[in-house]
Amino acid sequence: MINIGICGYGNLGKGVEAAISQNEDMKLIAVFTRRSPDSIKLQTPNVGVYSMKDMAKFKDQIDVMILCGGSATDLPTQTPEIARMFNVVDSFDTHAKVYEHFLNVDKVALESKKIAIISTGWDPGMFSLNRLMMEAVLPNGNDYTFWGKGVSQGHSDAIRRIKGVVDARQYTIPVDEALQKVRNCENPILTTRQKHIRDCYVVVSNPDDEPRIEKEIKEMPNYFNDYDTYVHFVSLEELKKNHSGMPHGGFVIRTGKTGFNLENNHVIEYSLKLDSNPEFTGNVLVAYARACYRLNKRKECGCRTVFDIAPRDLINQSYEDLLKHTL
Amino acid sequence: MINIGICGYGNLGKGVEAAISQNEDMKLIAVFTRRSPDSIKLQTPNVGVYSMKDMAKFKDQIDVMILCGGSATDLPTQTPEIARMFNVVDSFDTHAKVYEHFLNVDKVALESKKIAIISTGWDPGMFSLNRLMMEAVLPNGNDYTFWGKGVSQGHSDAIRRIKGVVDARQYTIPVDEALQKVRNCENPILTTRQKHIRDCYVVVSNPDDEPRIEKEIKEMPNYFNDYDTYVHFVSLEELKKNHSGMPHGGFVIRTGKTGFNLENNHVIEYSLKLDSNPEFTGNVLVAYARACYRLNKRKECGCRTVFDIAPRDLINQSYEDLLKHTL
Repeated sequence: MINIGICGYGNLGKGVEAAISQNEDMKLIAVFTRRSPDSIKLQTPNVGVYSMKDMAKFKDQIDVMILCGGSATDLPTQTPEIARMFNVVDSFDTHAKVYEHFLNVDKVALESKKIAIISTGWDPGMFSLNRLMMEAVLPNGNDYTFWGKGVSQGHSDAIRRIKGVVDARQYTIPVDEALQKVRNCENPILTTRQKHIRDCYVVVSNPDDEPRIEKEIKEMPNYFNDYDTYVHFVSLEELKKNHSGMPHGGFVIRTGKTGFNLENNHVIEYSLKLDSNPEFTGNVLVAYARACYRLNKRKECGCRTVFDIAPRDLINQSYEDLLKHTL
Repeated sequence: MINIGICGYGNLGKGVEAAISQNEDMKLIAVFTRRSPDSIKLQTPNVGVYSMKDMAKFKDQIDVMILCGGSATDLPTQTPEIARMFNVVDSFDTHAKVYEHFLNVDKVALESKKIAIISTGWDPGMFSLNRLMMEAVLPNGNDYTFWGKGVSQGHSDAIRRIKGVVDARQYTIPVDEALQKVRNCENPILTTRQKHIRDCYVVVSNPDDEPRIEKEIKEMPNYFNDYDTYVHFVSLEELKKNHSGMPHGGFVIRTGKTGFNLENNHVIEYSLKLDSNPEFTGNVLVAYARACYRLNKRKECGCRTVFDIAPRDLINQSYEDLLKHTL
């Protein structure tokens, strides 16, 4: 049995909790929060919620701590701090800062003799793994990543910060025409606008503000102005009824050529279609928590990513069974 | 530089030769054959062709021997024999006998202190890896593998053995309706007939034999009688013009549920669309040859499969670059 702790109980923490319940070799020991522990009710019976300050007391009871904080401010400090005491898994997803995060965490984990697996989830995570594998087996080619259809939390939040907006939900949607060009081995050079559209459902307090709010959304730098953006004004009831889920997904596609005259084309495609982004991400974190536990049992230590983990370490099955039934 | 030998120069051997030319860290040293070496002309300049009997002379010059023989009779004996002298990679694809092959090869490779990676390619190989990864991250679900559209060498050969058949080509084609049911999370229970159809292009010496030959194909046990089989009689010219390629591909799809009430559905799909089955397979073998070399450099030995190999060992890039650009 692998004893798991969860640090942070937002959407992702809840997704990890649900994931643990699907894995027979895992047991949830405790959840840690910055909020008042009394304010949190878990789905799992007989598991306690504790203040993050009390984490050290669980040093000998928890095999792997799964970190469910955010990448902007939580994980850059939490992952190295907590790796002083525990094996950890995180889903740090600021692509541009992954290497810096890796170096910070590696230093601590080598000292504490723990294993830290960073940047798991689906992107980074499963998508990264596929980008690497596809390039390894098709070196002469190009890969493309498309996201969606799915809810972008960051873009939804950006709309909510506009004056007069009550609530909002933003969907990122890949452009079908671009997907088809990629699949047809056309190796297109695609602008930001050609790859994704942004579809926004917005609740406002005063309908007179709609023209201004629509303009502010569409012209927002970085978030929307480089995209074809569609704005739909809806009632709060409609938003809650039709847009309360957290679906996501996407595509990694690589096309490439083989043969001495590069005469043969190949297409490799990996796609995800997820009803619940945090629950699927939670499942991935739990699979990497299993690998984290096993690596540390073998006396390994330091920081790892999905690129370091042998597939067999992710699954609760004997090697013999895997060779007989999965290979 | 990783020095590679190729054992067997049929379609797969040629595919491996082409693959080596696309990988800057690889060099082809020699090709070994059971045929007369003089009868073979390579695409790569200044590389010799030798009799398999002379392989031992290259013991110190070749880092990894890539075995390109067939699974029925060649590899069960060749892989263990050659693993006495060389690190080896094979594409043994008789799923039912993989475990036995593993045990045979492991014993030898542990003694010789070499690494042998067996059953690489795309199925077994990339598809196996995806089956494992998908189950690891979505334990509550079902996976499905579909093959095609592509040429099945075994089924084409079976048709050629029928009296009066001059040549033949058989395409395995997944049934679209079945694919859609799987993608819709219907978890269908599919019979052999419901998953694939078999489409045959056949050249006969005497048109009067066509009814008998069509009947013999459609009723052939194991190969055709469990499938909806279509037979098209064509001229030799047409067969050569339109059916001389070796395309293949397929799909691995897993659907599964998450959430405490299993309320959320997820679909993971991996697909390949290959113009040349042997050239793509060759590329996969070469990537695993790289891992084979690296593992042995780290003093590891014994038999491995795709389940044991960490993704980073497959690619010719620094870890820092991978974290910065691929993760």
